[in-house]
Amino acid sequence: MTTVTQSISNFVTTTNYNDLPDWSVHEAKRTLLNMLAISLSASEANGAKILIKWAENEEAAKKSCVIGTNLKTSPSNAALVNGFLCHLQDYDDTHFPTILHPTAPVWPAVLALAENLGASGRDTLCAFALGAEVACRIAISVHPWHYDQGWHITGTAGVFGAAAGAGKIIGLNNPDLTNALGVAGTLAAGVREVFGTHGKPLHAGHAAENGLRAANWAQAGFTGGDDIIGGRRGFWAVASRDGHSEEALIGDLGKRWELQMNGLKPFANGIVSHPIQQAIIELRNEFSLKAEQIDSIQAKVHPLVLELMNRANPRVGLEGKFSFQHCAAAALIDGAGHDAQFSDEKVNDPKIVMIRSKVSATVDKAVAEDEVYLSINLLDGRKLEKHIEHATGSPTNPMSDEALNEKYQTLASEVLPQTQVEELAAAVWELDDASDVSDISRLMQIIPKSSNT
Amino acid sequence: MTTVTQSISNFVTTTNYNDLPDWSVHEAKRTLLNMLAISLSASEANGAKILIKWAENEEAAKKSCVIGTNLKTSPSNAALVNGFLCHLQDYDDTHFPTILHPTAPVWPAVLALAENLGASGRDTLCAFALGAEVACRIAISVHPWHYDQGWHITGTAGVFGAAAGAGKIIGLNNPDLTNALGVAGTLAAGVREVFGTHGKPLHAGHAAENGLRAANWAQAGFTGGDDIIGGRRGFWAVASRDGHSEEALIGDLGKRWELQMNGLKPFANGIVSHPIQQAIIELRNEFSLKAEQIDSIQAKVHPLVLELMNRANPRVGLEGKFSFQHCAAAALIDGAGHDAQFSDEKVNDPKIVMIRSKVSATVDKAVAEDEVYLSINLLDGRKLEKHIEHATGSPTNPMSDEALNEKYQTLASEVLPQTQVEELAAAVWELDDASDVSDISRLMQIIPKSSNT
Repeated sequence: MTTVTQSISNFVTTTNYNDLPDWSVHEAKRTLLNMLAISLSASEANGAKILIKWAENEEAAKKSCVIGTNLKTSPSNAALVNGFLCHLQDYDDTHFPTILHPTAPVWPAVLALAENLGASGRDTLCAFALGAEVACRIAISVHPWHYDQGWHITGTAGVFGAAAGAGKIIGLNNPDLTNALGVAGTLAAGVREVFGTHGKPLHAGHAAENGLRAANWAQAGFTGGDDIIGGRRGFWAVASRDGHSEEALIGDLGKRWELQMNGLKPFANGIVSHPIQQAIIELRNEFSLKAEQIDSIQAKVHPLVLELMNRANPRVGLEGKFSFQHCAAAALIDGAGHDAQFSDEKVNDPKIVMIRSKVSATVDKAVAEDEVYLSINLLDGRKLEKHIEHATGSPTNPMSDEALNEKYQTLASEVLPQTQVEELAAAVWELDDASDVSDISRLMQIIPKSSNT
Repeated sequence: MTTVTQSISNFVTTTNYNDLPDWSVHEAKRTLLNMLAISLSASEANGAKILIKWAENEEAAKKSCVIGTNLKTSPSNAALVNGFLCHLQDYDDTHFPTILHPTAPVWPAVLALAENLGASGRDTLCAFALGAEVACRIAISVHPWHYDQGWHITGTAGVFGAAAGAGKIIGLNNPDLTNALGVAGTLAAGVREVFGTHGKPLHAGHAAENGLRAANWAQAGFTGGDDIIGGRRGFWAVASRDGHSEEALIGDLGKRWELQMNGLKPFANGIVSHPIQQAIIELRNEFSLKAEQIDSIQAKVHPLVLELMNRANPRVGLEGKFSFQHCAAAALIDGAGHDAQFSDEKVNDPKIVMIRSKVSATVDKAVAEDEVYLSINLLDGRKLEKHIEHATGSPTNPMSDEALNEKYQTLASEVLPQTQVEELAAAVWELDDASDVSDISRLMQIIPKSSNT
């Protein structure tokens, strides 16, 4: 009898680039560009520096690149650090049904190995699409019980996806891939207790690293059993005791794609205030609004906005991410909601503080979570109004490629010179025609001046 | 208010070598000698070779030694491989109340760092004793619910102990050690589904590695929250939902020592047949018994012997570990029950097969788990009898230093030359007087012939 773990393995080993729906290849590129953008931006944060310094001190073989640095290290270490960077700003993509973040555990594992092996662009995109699909399938099979129990699903489901993606790119067949899933799955980890600490992004890096290692070890002969997912003391039984769904895991594999429910974030903060930010930015751009013109900003919102993000006077950057007032003020003044809008300096900027005090919201149960009715009263007496019916960034209303490019340009430019920013984006969009991923690996790093002639 | 995690941190940071009871220092040396014995013996197994080869390919900084090889690698990698080796034969020590194996996750983390830092013998022994105590305390605080739920407690509780031991040896204070426990604890992993695969020993190595890393990262500034153990979505709440005991975790810290309930194994197989093996070996030595003399061997045993280990015809080595008949036959012929007695060749050895067929057992509920009434009928008509009231290897009837030395000598000699075997043992027994651990690190490796003059 085929176990559910073997069914997942079979799906991964028998699906190849030509079997993928076109949108999934495009989505794989989008998630990669998004990962590069946010990881570059994250690479100068304190926590990032700690982990990067640690990896340097490991002095491991210079095989795979760490984003936003000039460090090359072993694939295992590169997966760890890049996974951490990708999730550090909470600005990565989201599988909406489960709030799994599929890219952070999967892409770093696939990319580090693809670089080391010289894998083709198509094989690399395919390995990511399959790995991400496995992560999403594992996640949806234990949703909502597993997350409700306190697990951070990006770490736990993520390691299965990383093993699947890593196994695909190195060409594992069965039973090796089933063993890799076994080894990876028994290392699944991450609890929500550490949210707000470096532990949270570490879950993603840890998943990437251990999925990659599991694939390498299984290729060399490591065993991990034949049903880590559905076995008597496997993942479902131990870490999702309140329920699981076999149909969600393996139903219509290759036909129904959970990856289709993945969305990119336009703002680096809690999702419930995104409609407000979008409405303000649209009005700001339409009317060239300046801070000095504003009398007040009112929003009619879904109840969750006040429940989760009502914080009139944030004192540090992280609190700003949970203040709809701050998000609104930054949107008006900077026209953005990147991580830079949530620095300690920014939340204490007098201009921001001034606008923040003019922002208010009222709850209306008829307003949806991705909706807002927003009005801005100007000092000259005008009243500007904007209704956002569905904020962008959800699977049904995805961020456009243009908006993604804009996000990427802004964030990548924080770290890389402009010509390199352009070249890297081009390399991502053309990855399906590339013979390998070397351009991406090279261009996502800080290139020392001497060699940048 | 002090969280339970902070209480554990305070215990570790404020307890030093001079505060330790004498027996615990001696026990720390015994567990180290036992670890070296079984890790040396394990270092030539297939799974070991895979992980050692992988670590070689990482090409990391040559700072810490891998047992039974000539490989030096980063402390992180050394902890991973040595933890794996120590648990590979299921021949390591056991905290009897919880069946946690404290040495495999803790000693490798402490030793790899002590070697790299040049820590003194006393500080090293102290760091192990505290780390092992933390692992045992975590384990007993979730016993029996956590293991019953399917978790492999050596992996999950082990990572806390590794972080505590690693944190102690590098001199973490609070809140850094609390953060280290947070980072380590959220990476706690290992399910019983993979028992019988390479996943099981990997749990110990993974715990050692991640405890060590967590300590290093916390020292550099990583955060992990202030209560990974007792927090709302911490270890107790998420991974031991059916119960936990705060008293077991932090009651009488520094007075009551769970480490006192740790025991070393005289045989590399399931514990319930140990009384049989001990009785046979004692009679064998007393009467110089040979296979050719045996008519039959009968044992009156606790019911678990038949329930867990009744396998008259094992076909491969691993099955031999779960066959009381095979254990008895090997005890008679080899006078031992090391891993060498459980090879595929050994279970198919005609002499062993012949004796195995003469072994039988009957259940008596009045016989305790660590007890046996054994009789051997000889072909010359004699009937030899032996009653073992308490088999050795439990905390109440520990393996003697002499028996441990004999186990060590046999296993270490499989890999190291005899003079080195002696020198390594001496270095362990004199560790409390050593200025550092360099003798142990050097002598636990294969010394290339050219430098062995």
